[in-house]
Amino acid sequence: MPASQDLLIDVHTHVVPQSFPAYVGRHLDAPWPSMAAAAQPCHSHVMVSGSVYRTVTHQCWDCQVRAADMAQKAVDLQVLSVMPELLSYWLEPEDAAVLCRFMNEVIARMAADHPDRFVGLAAVPLQDVSRAIAELDHAMHQLGLVGVEIGTNVNGVAVGDPRFLPFFEAAAQWGAAIFVHPLRPAGMDRLVGPPSLEQVLAFPGETGLAAASMITGGTFARLPGLRIAYSHGGGSLSMLLPRLQHAWQSLPPVRDALPMDPWQAARRMYYDDLVYDAATIHRLIDVFGPTQVMAGSDYPFSIMDADPAQRLASLAVPADVLRLLRGENARRWLGRPEQG
Amino acid sequence: MPASQDLLIDVHTHVVPQSFPAYVGRHLDAPWPSMAAAAQPCHSHVMVSGSVYRTVTHQCWDCQVRAADMAQKAVDLQVLSVMPELLSYWLEPEDAAVLCRFMNEVIARMAADHPDRFVGLAAVPLQDVSRAIAELDHAMHQLGLVGVEIGTNVNGVAVGDPRFLPFFEAAAQWGAAIFVHPLRPAGMDRLVGPPSLEQVLAFPGETGLAAASMITGGTFARLPGLRIAYSHGGGSLSMLLPRLQHAWQSLPPVRDALPMDPWQAARRMYYDDLVYDAATIHRLIDVFGPTQVMAGSDYPFSIMDADPAQRLASLAVPADVLRLLRGENARRWLGRPEQG
Repeated sequence: MPASQDLLIDVHTHVVPQSFPAYVGRHLDAPWPSMAAAAQPCHSHVMVSGSVYRTVTHQCWDCQVRAADMAQKAVDLQVLSVMPELLSYWLEPEDAAVLCRFMNEVIARMAADHPDRFVGLAAVPLQDVSRAIAELDHAMHQLGLVGVEIGTNVNGVAVGDPRFLPFFEAAAQWGAAIFVHPLRPAGMDRLVGPPSLEQVLAFPGETGLAAASMITGGTFARLPGLRIAYSHGGGSLSMLLPRLQHAWQSLPPVRDALPMDPWQAARRMYYDDLVYDAATIHRLIDVFGPTQVMAGSDYPFSIMDADPAQRLASLAVPADVLRLLRGENARRWLGRPEQG
Repeated sequence: MPASQDLLIDVHTHVVPQSFPAYVGRHLDAPWPSMAAAAQPCHSHVMVSGSVYRTVTHQCWDCQVRAADMAQKAVDLQVLSVMPELLSYWLEPEDAAVLCRFMNEVIARMAADHPDRFVGLAAVPLQDVSRAIAELDHAMHQLGLVGVEIGTNVNGVAVGDPRFLPFFEAAAQWGAAIFVHPLRPAGMDRLVGPPSLEQVLAFPGETGLAAASMITGGTFARLPGLRIAYSHGGGSLSMLLPRLQHAWQSLPPVRDALPMDPWQAARRMYYDDLVYDAATIHRLIDVFGPTQVMAGSDYPFSIMDADPAQRLASLAVPADVLRLLRGENARRWLGRPEQG
């Protein structure tokens, strides 16, 4: 990680490996991903279960291309995480462990080859908490990854469910930076319009409910040192929070169930600024605090915010707040506030 | 409706009839509501399918009690709508039509007996669009109700689905004020905590998706004169909108599917201010405009914002904006901007 005190750190960037190993497991019709050539140069199809999940570019795996894009947009460091669908919580755990190990090695190599440009987050098979803990251990202590990307839910169960507590205990103990990204969101049956509304409209509510579950399920109160960040500005959380706070103050069943002031808990978690609007980023800063918001772009996907540095510059905040948002908050989340 | 130009109009207040007629339909085990005495004075249990849905007080039906509460909190006019669960979209349409007619007569009587205190919204059997149109016709033109309360979804289908377009066409033609309230929300399987989190955390996302569906499904673009309002400040909509706007500007499939600038559409719809926090109401004003936000309390339920006038006074907005929020916007939504 480079030494400058004024880095632009983009915490929300995705990786797809250039290729996947062939499936060698024992389960019929396993939804194991593969890559297929696309007609356009530098494009590939990510195939899952025989159909194209998404067509992506070599920006997903080519470090030189990424570095050139970063130089052009004055991004100093990218935090790498796999395209969330690849987390593959629907694979059998033994298969998922193999896939996660492969992807973690890919990301570790990118970070090791370009330590001034990339740090990496692991993928873990959270459908099996013991295997997830083992893979996080390996990824952080053998491969040098700095934390983990997890989905908002694991096969429909929100991450705040107590079954995942042992995983978060391990993550807290090892100082993992956790990045929570929406995946197979709730509310799909409420959308009216084109398929891409899944990402556009269902993702934010899914993320808001996942973040709330970490508060209402008690995980964050038990592990207040957890360094956990939510994508897309926490989704709907900033609108849920005043209502949750009112309920906590006025409804005894909610008060009794929540061990910690919910708004205070939310102000100790982290959020990227991927909301595409300066006034809305200001709202995030107001709700969560200037020390908890970080730059995030969704690079290199089509919905990305193309110039995260310019987005922050457009906020017209004081220089010390701008430094927090550009990189100091991300350094703290990554557990490297002092490090060069 | 009283004549003063500085009324406090509470657009979000609920009614439960003191009693229901016995079920005389032909369907076995119909989930027809009834009232049962509760141990506490002035309390009754709302029973559905043999269990207590909610225990409510005589504030739900007693106009004198309501008027006294209003006087105490300086609320001038309440817009009455039934407790949303009573919309009963899961009843057979012929049964639902009978129940809605009964409830509309109850609300019409409250409004007719106290025209200086109450105006009423109808309930309609939206599981059968033709019957819903017929009941809205009767409720507005025979009973004198000023509009209609609808759920965010009808048995899982969001209100922006094209199947409901004929209903909204009728509502637009007749100048109905439409109030959209969450009901049987999406995302229940993502909650971790006490049952009341349904209202606290799942309602806002449900409302946001319903409001978005009116934009992405094209209903509002076809009926831009529709006077439609959303409860709970539109729920998550204010956080969905910047992302939807970005997608509309940058993703061709979204652009092609949406006939109208989504943020402009949202700024022509109405929202109550039931978000329990002054800064969050300011956010609603910023996102939707000072002409689109109205006082709403959820009276008389336990989660209500007890003093909606004081809530607005706490905003420290200019006097002309305060007048809009207190009542002028609600008058326009109700279709009575000039009327005394």
